[in-house]
Amino acid sequence: MGCIQSFRQCCDRPKNTNVRISLPAVCFVWQIAMIILFGIFIRYNEESDAHWIEHKTSNNISSNIENDFYFRYPSFQDVHVMIFVGFGFLMTFLKRYSFGAVGFNFLIAGFGLQWALLMQGWFHSLDPMDGKIKIGVESMINADFCVASCLIAYGAVLGKVSPVQLMVMTLFGVTLYAVEEYIILSLIHARDAGGSMVIHTFGAYYGLSISWMLYRPNLDQSKHRIGSVYNSDVFAMIGTLFLWMFWPSFNSAISDHGDGQHRAAINTYLSLAATVLTAIAISSLSQKTGKLDMVHIQNATLAGGVAVGTAAEFMLMPYGSLIVGFCCGIISTLGYIYITPFMEKYLKIHDTCGIHNLHAMPGVIGGIVGAITAAAASEGVYGKEGLRNTFDFKGEWKDMKPTQQGGHQAAGLCVALCFGIGGGIIVGCILRLPIWGDAPDNSCFDDEIYWELPEDEENNPPTVEYSNHMRNKAVTESNVSLERRQN
Amino acid sequence: MGCIQSFRQCCDRPKNTNVRISLPAVCFVWQIAMIILFGIFIRYNEESDAHWIEHKTSNNISSNIENDFYFRYPSFQDVHVMIFVGFGFLMTFLKRYSFGAVGFNFLIAGFGLQWALLMQGWFHSLDPMDGKIKIGVESMINADFCVASCLIAYGAVLGKVSPVQLMVMTLFGVTLYAVEEYIILSLIHARDAGGSMVIHTFGAYYGLSISWMLYRPNLDQSKHRIGSVYNSDVFAMIGTLFLWMFWPSFNSAISDHGDGQHRAAINTYLSLAATVLTAIAISSLSQKTGKLDMVHIQNATLAGGVAVGTAAEFMLMPYGSLIVGFCCGIISTLGYIYITPFMEKYLKIHDTCGIHNLHAMPGVIGGIVGAITAAAASEGVYGKEGLRNTFDFKGEWKDMKPTQQGGHQAAGLCVALCFGIGGGIIVGCILRLPIWGDAPDNSCFDDEIYWELPEDEENNPPTVEYSNHMRNKAVTESNVSLERRQN
Amino acid sequence: MGCIQSFRQCCDRPKNTNVRISLPAVCFVWQIAMIILFGIFIRYNEESDAHWIEHKTSNNISSNIENDFYFRYPSFQDVHVMIFVGFGFLMTFLKRYSFGAVGFNFLIAGFGLQWALLMQGWFHSLDPMDGKIKIGVESMINADFCVASCLIAYGAVLGKVSPVQLMVMTLFGVTLYAVEEYIILSLIHARDAGGSMVIHTFGAYYGLSISWMLYRPNLDQSKHRIGSVYNSDVFAMIGTLFLWMFWPSFNSAISDHGDGQHRAAINTYLSLAATVLTAIAISSLSQKTGKLDMVHIQNATLAGGVAVGTAAEFMLMPYGSLIVGFCCGIISTLGYIYITPFMEKYLKIHDTCGIHNLHAMPGVIGGIVGAITAAAASEGVYGKEGLRNTFDFKGEWKDMKPTQQGGHQAAGLCVALCFGIGGGIIVGCILRLPIWGDAPDNSCFDDEIYWELPEDEENNPPTVEYSNHMRNKAVTESNVSLERRQN
Repeated sequence: MGCIQSFRQCCDRPKNTNVRISLPAVCFVWQIAMIILFGIFIRYNEESDAHWIEHKTSNNISSNIENDFYFRYPSFQDVHVMIFVGFGFLMTFLKRYSFGAVGFNFLIAGFGLQWALLMQGWFHSLDPMDGKIKIGVESMINADFCVASCLIAYGAVLGKVSPVQLMVMTLFGVTLYAVEEYIILSLIHARDAGGSMVIHTFGAYYGLSISWMLYRPNLDQSKHRIGSVYNSDVFAMIGTLFLWMFWPSFNSAISDHGDGQHRAAINTYLSLAATVLTAIAISSLSQKTGKLDMVHIQNATLAGGVAVGTAAEFMLMPYGSLIVGFCCGIISTLGYIYITPFMEKYLKIHDTCGIHNLHAMPGVIGGIVGAITAAAASEGVYGKEGLRNTFDFKGEWKDMKPTQQGGHQAAGLCVALCFGIGGGIIVGCILRLPIWGDAPDNSCFDDEIYWELPEDEENNPPTVEYSNHMRNKAVTESNVSLERRQN
Repeated sequence: MGCIQSFRQCCDRPKNTNVRISLPAVCFVWQIAMIILFGIFIRYNEESDAHWIEHKTSNNISSNIENDFYFRYPSFQDVHVMIFVGFGFLMTFLKRYSFGAVGFNFLIAGFGLQWALLMQGWFHSLDPMDGKIKIGVESMINADFCVASCLIAYGAVLGKVSPVQLMVMTLFGVTLYAVEEYIILSLIHARDAGGSMVIHTFGAYYGLSISWMLYRPNLDQSKHRIGSVYNSDVFAMIGTLFLWMFWPSFNSAISDHGDGQHRAAINTYLSLAATVLTAIAISSLSQKTGKLDMVHIQNATLAGGVAVGTAAEFMLMPYGSLIVGFCCGIISTLGYIYITPFMEKYLKIHDTCGIHNLHAMPGVIGGIVGAITAAAASEGVYGKEGLRNTFDFKGEWKDMKPTQQGGHQAAGLCVALCFGIGGGIIVGCILRLPIWGDAPDNSCFDDEIYWELPEDEENNPPTVEYSNHMRNKAVTESNVSLERRQN
Repeated sequence: MGCIQSFRQCCDRPKNTNVRISLPAVCFVWQIAMIILFGIFIRYNEESDAHWIEHKTSNNISSNIENDFYFRYPSFQDVHVMIFVGFGFLMTFLKRYSFGAVGFNFLIAGFGLQWALLMQGWFHSLDPMDGKIKIGVESMINADFCVASCLIAYGAVLGKVSPVQLMVMTLFGVTLYAVEEYIILSLIHARDAGGSMVIHTFGAYYGLSISWMLYRPNLDQSKHRIGSVYNSDVFAMIGTLFLWMFWPSFNSAISDHGDGQHRAAINTYLSLAATVLTAIAISSLSQKTGKLDMVHIQNATLAGGVAVGTAAEFMLMPYGSLIVGFCCGIISTLGYIYITPFMEKYLKIHDTCGIHNLHAMPGVIGGIVGAITAAAASEGVYGKEGLRNTFDFKGEWKDMKPTQQGGHQAAGLCVALCFGIGGGIIVGCILRLPIWGDAPDNSCFDDEIYWELPEDEENNPPTVEYSNHMRNKAVTESNVSLERRQN
């Protein structure tokens, strides 16, 4: 801790927010690197290659509709909307950081998905025949998933970092993600359709650890900019609703064709519906006169989708989904009321969007629910074929038992936690270097630093108090001058 | 009428808008009830159950793509967007009720869809073998449809009721919906793919009757809050456009696989396009200098989708769809200009969103168009197989003739009307009880009552008039005090 | 040029912006014409007709899922969102023209798609048996595509034309589009899945030519209204993101079933990701302190989708897509910085939305990329079957070679350019007639002219300067009056 403290101090030099060299340099270098690596490694898979027509004949595929594109593309588009509009607009709630929320979200997602295609490709879809990565619609969904974990992490540091820091954070975030995903899904053979562990737990703890490393003791200098205004809260609801509505697609996008996708969508739909009611109930309870708080509506209503992620494709049963959503709505809302202030005050972790309540806790719950549901699976409920199919008890895992699978699920959760916290601390150290152009403590949460703002009247609307004050002052002065004149 | 009047008076006690006990209580009790009932009754159907793989083999289904999920899931997601973003944002047009519009829409939809799964399940998909309701993607669409009728009703009372009242209204609304749907679709054997009768006519008259029962003679105390502001009108256009764009999915979501869904989408697409032109034409005609009114653009442009609902899957012909849209654009816009003020003044029905023009009238027209189109159906146009398929002349209805079907359609419309008006009056009586925490007449259409509002400068922007007034007053006072001083 | 000049002068009479007769007249006449023409010409195709069930049997189609509806409907809905929300909201960036942006976009799209179904139907899907146009889901996508070209053109004249002019512009635009599309796709046999040439090049040059013909030398009288405000920029990001996210659906919507659609989606996804990074890099480089400009983020990030349009279904290779996106992000952003001001100053072309940078240049690049990619196609890369399939070397074109195809692609690009520029000049002449109700030079970019605006406080928010000025004036006057009184 002492070491971290001294490292922190050594990094606290005066801030220069000019990113005119660093941001374009990073963008160009990384994009050129992507082109070269894509040129070397990435090719179409057999379903998106022009040889598909021959592949179809030789594999006795009766119709083009059997192409994976038609199974997954609608879900892909929904996930895509969640990444860019959902996460982007969810973060517009700050009164003067909407450009940064939507714009930097766009930037890091645009970069992250390319790097994710490469990293995930090396681990998962490297063709041993020619050493190439073969991509298709499922690769695009997985890339979007990977990016989601970095956008979750962005939520913790929203308004406090520069776009260059975000790019670095995404580069390492995607890399760590690909490794932990490979360990959890392939080595440990845990199942995680909706990514409660792989995406949410990892992403949230990654972001929180970075936020802890970048702790700003004097952030209260920017306190007046942390709140929302009426319109920014409505904009944020666009993000909330698109996340909420398309979450069934998120959790079902890469699950098994047929009943797997079908069941994952139903479970998520139900879990989210239950969360809305309990989040609103706790929000109302927390205020003297029962008024609702937009922060809870915007965030806690989504916790059910996170928590049902791992178990979405299992036979969780409709009432099981409702129970998961029920609990998470309560826990997440209580988190916003009690845990976020606690973490800021005592743990020195400032969490702008409250990702601990929306992703970290529900993600861990989701991992646990997944482990329990897997351990409790039986042939009676799933059918013999169904059990093998759902848990992929094939190949080297063909003798696995559901109880064992439960253990593997729990192990997967631990890996996600370790990668999130460990990776976040290391990347946080790198991001403390005083070369990234982040804002000084009194200019956080302000688009002014990185954006050309329109010179509009509404930028600094005169408040009634302000103009009254000014007027009174002027009138007083006029009186004074009059009195002087009279004397 | 006298009886209703005296009941009204007995209910007009001083208002207490504190919902801190009632709202959480209702949310928790109902959500727990849902969990218990789901536990007892609701299971996955054969297409979302892990036994699908065995079902597939035993039913000779060649591919997973035959799972109903792939026929209906894209439409489901579109409908889902209409429910949450479409209806939610359409109602944000009021200058200070955007939180209530989007937030309460979210609350009642989240609850309503769970209750709808149960109610519709008992009537439509109870498995006689084990007494369980089996749900799949079609159940989710139907639940969303059911919720739509309650959200339509919400439009009539927007800004005038408390969230607790909305929950009660939804509980009864869903119940009534399930019964009338069962009568219309199963007992009467009317067809209603897009729900002109079942959803729109019922929902609108349900809401209007409630609004009539809850009539507030002194609502003009809140008159200054009924208008829109520039940004709130743009937010409302988000709702309008997502409703408009996805209406083809709404009307085709549960129609027959293949040509049924295909035709329903085309008919709706065309009808809506025609509505846009006539709504804009009448809007322009209604103003001295031909200016357009946002209220008409936001609402009347959607009337064509409502009116083509019942007949969408019939052979309405492309020009038939255009004619329906053409007429409804005119009628709906004229409704906003003439009928809404008339209803408020003479019938004592205050209709905040004008659902009479957008849902009630077009819904009835849609029912009539459906009856005529059904009665005019012939084997020449549909083909022998096609006629049987489209109108489901199978089983006990196998000897039905199109003319008879026309009669049944008309009967269905009457049932929807009766349930809407009758149900609305009864539920309206219940909602008049002075225990629900609704706002006093001078605080309607104000988020202040039920929401923690951000303390932002823009909350009460000083108007030029206002600040002039204040300034003049201050200056006058300074003059007065000066004159006093001079004396 | 002299002739054009004198024609211009003869048209410059005092402006009357009353459209109360003309707008409704145009809407009604054209909508009635549509109904009549649809009645005569348009019928359902075999996949949306009730005879589908018989067609299925007689054509040995095993399942309803083979209906084209299930191949294309999800893409259709995405394209539909791009047309109405994407283009509509992209243009809301102006501080006082959001109603006009979204509303007129809605109007011309609603009309345009009907006329497009007819025009495209006459050229492409006229059934020789009965002289009827048979429509299905692909016709709806093509109609939306056609409308897109008119909406692109709208971008150039945004805020400077009346709704009646827009309707005229759309009528001719759709007509020209249908002819050039027929020439390019059918006569020349060029391929253009995403419409780089047919949609973007044509649409952009059509709009720019019209804007040139309608040049207003005194437009600086409306200069103060050309900028954005904070919230209007956030609204515009809704448009940007929905265009960006759904562009893969746009480029793949009408390409070949199976690998064609799959590959088009992947190529577009990658190209757009690369564009984001280079657009942001150049935007940052162009400002002294590296700040980003919202204009570039809103527009230039989309250029990659335009430029990859033609080649999207070819074997462009993932790295090829990245390169196209890389270049277009740079070129488009530089266009906004250097070319748009140049065009306005020296070429007398005022381009409100900068469509030259977003659609014209990337469209031409897309045409060239398509020609090169086609010319370079080989059996080694595509496979024998794949080559024939991808380039449709069938029927009368069965002996065509890829190099020839490259020439045909280039010819197609020239046709699109000629139709755009030529058509735009002619239609621009028509639109200069002083009968269309366009706004005077000092009232451009103002919703006030064609819309009933809410009387809201925020309409004319008092600036600090303004209210200070007013206050000082008032205080001064009070002093004066006091001094007078004292004398």
